Amino acid sequence: MAVPSGPKGTRDFYPQIMAIQQHIFDSWTKTSRKYGFEQFEGPMFEHLDVYRKKSGDEIEKQLYAFKDKAEREIALRPELTPTLARMVAAKGTTLKKPLRWFSIPRLFRYEKMQKGRLREFFQLNMDIIGIEEVSADAELIAAAIDMMKDLGLTADDFKVRISNRTLLEELFEHYGLPREDHQKLYALLDKKHKVPPENYDAEMEKIIPDTDTRHNIKNIFSMNSLEKISNCCGKQLDSIENLQHLFDLLTSYGFDDYVVFDIGVVRGLAYYTGIVFELFDANKSMRAIAGGGRYDNLIKLYGGPPTPAVGFAAGDVVLAELLKEKSLMPPDPPRSDLFIITSDDVAYDQRIATARQLREKGIRCEFALKEKMNMTKQLKAANAAGVRYALFLGKEENEQGKVRVKDMRTGSEELLDVENFGSQMVKLLDRCCSER
Amino acid sequence: MAVPSGPKGTRDFYPQIMAIQQHIFDSWTKTSRKYGFEQFEGPMFEHLDVYRKKSGDEIEKQLYAFKDKAEREIALRPELTPTLARMVAAKGTTLKKPLRWFSIPRLFRYEKMQKGRLREFFQLNMDIIGIEEVSADAELIAAAIDMMKDLGLTADDFKVRISNRTLLEELFEHYGLPREDHQKLYALLDKKHKVPPENYDAEMEKIIPDTDTRHNIKNIFSMNSLEKISNCCGKQLDSIENLQHLFDLLTSYGFDDYVVFDIGVVRGLAYYTGIVFELFDANKSMRAIAGGGRYDNLIKLYGGPPTPAVGFAAGDVVLAELLKEKSLMPPDPPRSDLFIITSDDVAYDQRIATARQLREKGIRCEFALKEKMNMTKQLKAANAAGVRYALFLGKEENEQGKVRVKDMRTGSEELLDVENFGSQMVKLLDRCCSER
Repeated sequence: MAVPSGPKGTRDFYPQIMAIQQHIFDSWTKTSRKYGFEQFEGPMFEHLDVYRKKSGDEIEKQLYAFKDKAEREIALRPELTPTLARMVAAKGTTLKKPLRWFSIPRLFRYEKMQKGRLREFFQLNMDIIGIEEVSADAELIAAAIDMMKDLGLTADDFKVRISNRTLLEELFEHYGLPREDHQKLYALLDKKHKVPPENYDAEMEKIIPDTDTRHNIKNIFSMNSLEKISNCCGKQLDSIENLQHLFDLLTSYGFDDYVVFDIGVVRGLAYYTGIVFELFDANKSMRAIAGGGRYDNLIKLYGGPPTPAVGFAAGDVVLAELLKEKSLMPPDPPRSDLFIITSDDVAYDQRIATARQLREKGIRCEFALKEKMNMTKQLKAANAAGVRYALFLGKEENEQGKVRVKDMRTGSEELLDVENFGSQMVKLLDRCCSER
Repeated sequence: MAVPSGPKGTRDFYPQIMAIQQHIFDSWTKTSRKYGFEQFEGPMFEHLDVYRKKSGDEIEKQLYAFKDKAEREIALRPELTPTLARMVAAKGTTLKKPLRWFSIPRLFRYEKMQKGRLREFFQLNMDIIGIEEVSADAELIAAAIDMMKDLGLTADDFKVRISNRTLLEELFEHYGLPREDHQKLYALLDKKHKVPPENYDAEMEKIIPDTDTRHNIKNIFSMNSLEKISNCCGKQLDSIENLQHLFDLLTSYGFDDYVVFDIGVVRGLAYYTGIVFELFDANKSMRAIAGGGRYDNLIKLYGGPPTPAVGFAAGDVVLAELLKEKSLMPPDPPRSDLFIITSDDVAYDQRIATARQLREKGIRCEFALKEKMNMTKQLKAANAAGVRYALFLGKEENEQGKVRVKDMRTGSEELLDVENFGSQMVKLLDRCCSER
């Protein structure tokens, strides 16, 4: 009979693969906590309307949506932000702001599978709720950078590309582009690096027939500094000041090498209201690893009080690819610290009693569960389990009041007193961990 | 506008509730690792057939089942064991046995909501794959007990009730009950404590019309020790020997106070092949907290090689109720270790620079994100955040090369040298943790 396979776009996390996931989750948790963020979670699915509210009917095409047995329309969550907005809105003004909340949700999107995209994936979400100043955006971008640094990545490996949704609006208005044409231009800008330059130019001409206006706006789009844009349009724009202050703050965080201004970052979605940013590998050869920005209207949209908010989400799939490329994946961790081996003249009970002592001290240990097994086979089992140490209990050592410990990596052995070998093992393991 | 609510039978995990969940998850992970178990995970949904294979078409009624956009029948997972069996079967003989695997899956059942039952819940799953001896059952039951002990529960709070699926079979055969009547009797036995005694007796008479046979079997069912059953039926049964050895091994683990023989534990499902057990609160006033047993045929059923296996699952909902009843819930943890407060004559940058230094040392810290905020308001924000310490940066202290630290619990203050206050804070926090 054929073994059934898992659903398309999902992953089976065997222990070695799970260890890599866990390494990423641990790092995400550690960074979030360092920044004073508290963990929250929501249901794995929501009423479909919760997603329609934020993204319109279009979203349904990308969702796992279904009716439950009571004919309620339900969807597996494609992102956590609607749940966050719903939860914050539900508490009205009773939650003490600002909130610093993080979560590591499992998410689902029914979409065409491509490199870096799966139908089931994980994210880190971090959000600061209740602060309208750009200092919150800075704190959040700093956390995103620290998240990458904690995994061993440097300023040579990734950059946060930052813009401001209102900057384009202000520029378009300054150059007299009619408001009804803004959306078309956003769309074009969003695909700048995805279409050939000649097509880009042709489309631009269609949207902005006037040569001078087109020249001015095209010129602006090619600029890679706030100063140039400011000089060019001849007046100080609020959004530029806002961005400049953000970059100054990020310099205070020590992160000037990690951030760049990029007018091309648009974050298509309608719900962003200010600063937007995307985190890419340095060459921009992969999809975005993280993205976020300010969304000051969303909690109100879900029936809550007007509440400023800023947040980002980082995905696990592209991040794991980058870690692999940079050889920053963790080495296979040993399943246990220690494997207990007994000689034929020692009762099986002794394995249990020894494990009890060690486990009470928090040492991860195991032993062969077949009661009658010779020492050679037990040692083979210890090797298969990939443990760090083997502990031998023989009649001879027993009579001397000793146990023998073998370092499976170096092969070196030492004798420990039977009376306090638990504590001695804790010391050995500490030493072994600090050597890594 | 009304705030939308989450779907029926699901939970919103606000940070305080999430902290309790995380406390349980951390304990589950710690115990599993102590026993040398490796973590694995599977997809959140499977092809519906994966569940039909194990439990028949009936199971569909209790599932969130739906068709995806390619008309594939999909179901949110109601348990992890089918996924485990599929994953182990898929690797054939290439996985080195025995496996010690654990997982903390999120699961979904579409069922009537009752106390202790939700439509979305979490479990700890632990399985040992590849050992047919009862020593594996003992190791697993020991782990289940240690899981409870690690959360602060004692032998006065809970018991593991153990039986053997083949024991009933052997007894029925011994007393000459026809094989076709066995299943009816299993069903009756499973609901012994749920129906009035007179109904129980009446049903018993229907299934076993012969007075002597009925008397013998009823007598057996009332026995609470293996010895009595053995004496009564007048011969040594394999299943009793198997159980007796299991209890001996659990005594070696030091857990004789935690386990009882209970012939009433049946675990209705067809897939169990030997030892079965259920973990209840001591008074059996709640639903089972954990249940499991041996399932030696399941991996073969999924197309893998014949592979003995034993496992258990513990749910989060009833466990949390018991912890609450026993006042063993963790206290609200502080969101951060420290809140940085600056006086009006110190620049906002100083908050950032100080946070950088502390976060680099792994200290969880935050500060007011409103740049212009007076000290009184900052202190209020520190109180609202529920931090352990407040760190004051004032011009006066600055000139003396000092920072002032206030213990928010006791109100006591001390001055630290500005040069190495990070390390001094680490020491203060260590002391504060060990005082808890």
